[in-house]
Order: sequence, then structure tokens, then C-alpha cells
Amino acid sequence: MSKIPQQLIKLANKCADASGKIIKKYFRKKIKINLKKDNTPFTKADIEAEKIIRELILKQEPNCGFVGEETGSINMNREYCWVVDPLDGTKSFITGKPSFGTLIGLLKNNKPVLGILNQPILNERWVGIAGVETKYNNKKVRVRKCKSIKGAKMYATSPMMFQGRNKKIYKNVRAKIGECLFGADCYSHGLMSLGFVDVILEANLKPWDYIASASIISGAGGKITDWNDNDLNLQSDGRILATGDSNIHKQIIKIIQK
Amino acid sequence: MSKIPQQLIKLANKCADASGKIIKKYFRKKIKINLKKDNTPFTKADIEAEKIIRELILKQEPNCGFVGEETGSINMNREYCWVVDPLDGTKSFITGKPSFGTLIGLLKNNKPVLGILNQPILNERWVGIAGVETKYNNKKVRVRKCKSIKGAKMYATSPMMFQGRNKKIYKNVRAKIGECLFGADCYSHGLMSLGFVDVILEANLKPWDYIASASIISGAGGKITDWNDNDLNLQSDGRILATGDSNIHKQIIKIIQK
Repeated sequence: MSKIPQQLIKLANKCADASGKIIKKYFRKKIKINLKKDNTPFTKADIEAEKIIRELILKQEPNCGFVGEETGSINMNREYCWVVDPLDGTKSFITGKPSFGTLIGLLKNNKPVLGILNQPILNERWVGIAGVETKYNNKKVRVRKCKSIKGAKMYATSPMMFQGRNKKIYKNVRAKIGECLFGADCYSHGLMSLGFVDVILEANLKPWDYIASASIISGAGGKITDWNDNDLNLQSDGRILATGDSNIHKQIIKIIQK
Repeated sequence: MSKIPQQLIKLANKCADASGKIIKKYFRKKIKINLKKDNTPFTKADIEAEKIIRELILKQEPNCGFVGEETGSINMNREYCWVVDPLDGTKSFITGKPSFGTLIGLLKNNKPVLGILNQPILNERWVGIAGVETKYNNKKVRVRKCKSIKGAKMYATSPMMFQGRNKKIYKNVRAKIGECLFGADCYSHGLMSLGFVDVILEANLKPWDYIASASIISGAGGKITDWNDNDLNLQSDGRILATGDSNIHKQIIKIIQK
């Protein structure tokens, strides 16, 4: 039984419906690409999708906090705080590749308790809820066992995400892993919960990139922490390790900390 | 008007229909993954999809040659020769990511004249025919102009594909390009024909990876050659440059040959 109120789960799904409609409208249309200060791109789709999510949440649950990639933070210390990436994988989106997704996460006392990953073009939705099994399009899903790190399939968004000391760690992990693939954005988190991906290693993530996924992966039986094996929250440093099999998680944490 | 017989176009589509059904059947099912001598994976889906394509072609057009990734080559020197990758992007396929595709190409006197890229899960099909505009799900499509190499969006399957001297060249190109993304397999060729990707740079491709795409990209107004700016055929060395804008092509060839 879920420990979080039904109306919050309903609200999260409503936000995914509404943002999905907006993103669909702009997908593969010739829209302007703007650049943020850190040189990452954003579009009307990112902005409008977050705007509708923020409006829906603050209208129905004005006491909740909100952290959004595009529109910033308010009341982050409230009991419940929403953490939203309206369009994770904007670079994929603007090249027409439907591996991007909308991430709607919820923290209770700074712990992830709810997460939605919505892929509006492929009509795929993952819902992870604390204490309940993760569902993919309304069907329960489960990570898979992985016998050996050598046979593991790993995803990272891009090898260029790892710089400095992180690059060395990434190379150490990659050297042990069977296969390393790139370019699946948050979609790789969904694939892990379905039992098709064993390891996800990322650096430089922001809370809106991992809070929603934390509930999805945990609820499917996987393990997701920072590189020091700590649970994730708003203050995590953005270096994330997710695995389907917890034995593999232990082994990779060892490699990271060598 | 197409210069190649209508029955060959129909046959190519029939092969895409038949192989698509097989691939759909195995997608996201727990099937055995086998390894070839070069350590690349294959599955029942790869084998059965190529088998049905080969059977359909050799039954209807026994005088044609055939080159298949999985089942080998016969009569490669005939006027018409089919070049088939039943499942380009097997690594994506086995992780559940629908960026893979079936590539069905046709050479006439060793020149690419027909290409189909079929994505059976997303129900997307590109058809490129010499002398005719490329179609995506039956609608004509066109590459886009790209003003500057700095603003270009590039795809490569994986940065690990570039080794030795090729790695140096890849790094030189990447240093000039606005954005470099990974992991879209042959799907990136389709996205280029739709006008959302500007550059594709690949090394180590085999004929079944590029013959079908050659017709799709050319027919949408793009340019695809080897790294020496030569047209593609069965003997190309597998180092491929495709661009939507031919000015960008010239500029990148210069960087490659520096």
C-alpha cells in the first residue's frame, strides 16, 4: 500500500498528461533552440511543459515546494516538494529522437517517494511509488538479476559528461563492464526498471534528473545512490549509480572508491 | 521518375513488412544473446529477420545478388545486388531501446539505387530511390540547410568506434562541431533525411550499414560519401561521412584530410 496520498499520485499523472500534450505539439517541428548560460539548449517545449506542470501543482497543492529545471525553486523545505524536469534529453528532442522524457518527482522530507517518467511520443509511462511496485503503462515491472559485471549492459548519457577525476572513475568502471552504450537520456532508467539495462552511471546530474528515477528504479527492485553509496536527495552531488542487481551495485561502488 | 523497376521497390517493402513482424515478436522479450567472433551480439531476431528477407528476394528475383550481415553473400557481381542488415543496432535492440532498424539496400552495377530503413516498433519507414525524393511514411522529406559547422548537430554510433588514426580525425571533427550525440544507430540517418541532424560520422561500417542509407540520404538532398569524398559501394572502407548540407560536407572533408 502506498504511503503517500492518492491525490498526489493523481496530480503527478495529470501533470504528465498535460506536459505530454505540449511536447507532442512541438516534436519534430522547426522550433527555435535557445541556449542557457551553461550552453545547454532549451525550447518552447521545455518552458511551456514546465509551466503547465508548475501551475497544476501550485493550484492544487499550494503548500508543496517546487524545484523545476526551467522555472526555479520555491519552498524547497516543505514536507512535500516536487522536482520536475519537463524535458530530460532536450538534445535528443531537438534532433527528433524520442529517447527524451518528462520527469516528475516528489520528495517527502527530502526523500524520493514518487516518480513519473513519461515518454509522450511513444506513449510510455513509468510510475514509481514508495512501498509499491513500479508500473510501466499500468503493468508491474521488475529489474533483472545480473550474474557478472562483465556481462552487464551499461548506459551513460554521454562519455563527455565525465571530466577530471570523474573521467578516471568512469574509465575504471567501463573497463570492467561488458557493454557501454550512450544516448538514452532518462529513457535508460525506464529500460532498467523493465529488466533490460543493468547499470547506469552518470556525473553532473541535477535533482530534476534523478529524483523521479529514484522511485522508479527502487520500486522495480533496483538500487540507485550517489557514488558514495548514499541515498539520493536534493543535496546529492549529481554523480549517480543505478543498478538492477544490488550485488553489481556493491561491486561498482568498490571500483569507484578504489 | 524512378529508374529502377517497380517490382523491386514492392519487393523491398514486402521484405520490410515481413522482417518487421519478426522483430516486433522478439522486442523486449527475454531472448538469448549470442556473440560473433568479433564479439558483436546477435539474436534470433537478427537471424530470422534476415532469413525471411533472403527467402523473399531469392524466390522472386533469383538473378539478383545478395549480401547479408548474418547469412553471407552470393552473386555479388550481378547487375542488381541486395545488401541487407536485418537489425542494425542489435545492442540497442537487446537493451529495449527502439533506435535500431532494418536496412534493405539495392545496388545496380555496384551503385546504391534503393534503400529502406524500417523501424518496426515505432512504425516508421524511410524509402529512398535513385531519381526520386525520399519518403518517410509515404511523405516526401528533405534535409535542412546548415549555416555553420559550429551550429551543426552530429551523430556517431559510439565514440569508441574510432580507434588509432580514425580517433584523431574524429576528435578533430568533433572539436569543430556544435553538438555531438551518440547511440542512434541507423535511426540517425532517418533523422538526417527529416532535417533534424546535420552530420553523421562513422568508422568501421560494413556495406549493410551504409548502402541502404546512401539512397535515403541522397534522395532527401543530403550527401553521403567515404572520408575521401568518394561515392559509396560494396568496396568502400567503412569510414562514412553524411551531411544534410553539401557545404558542410566540403568543410568536414577538409578537416578529415588535414
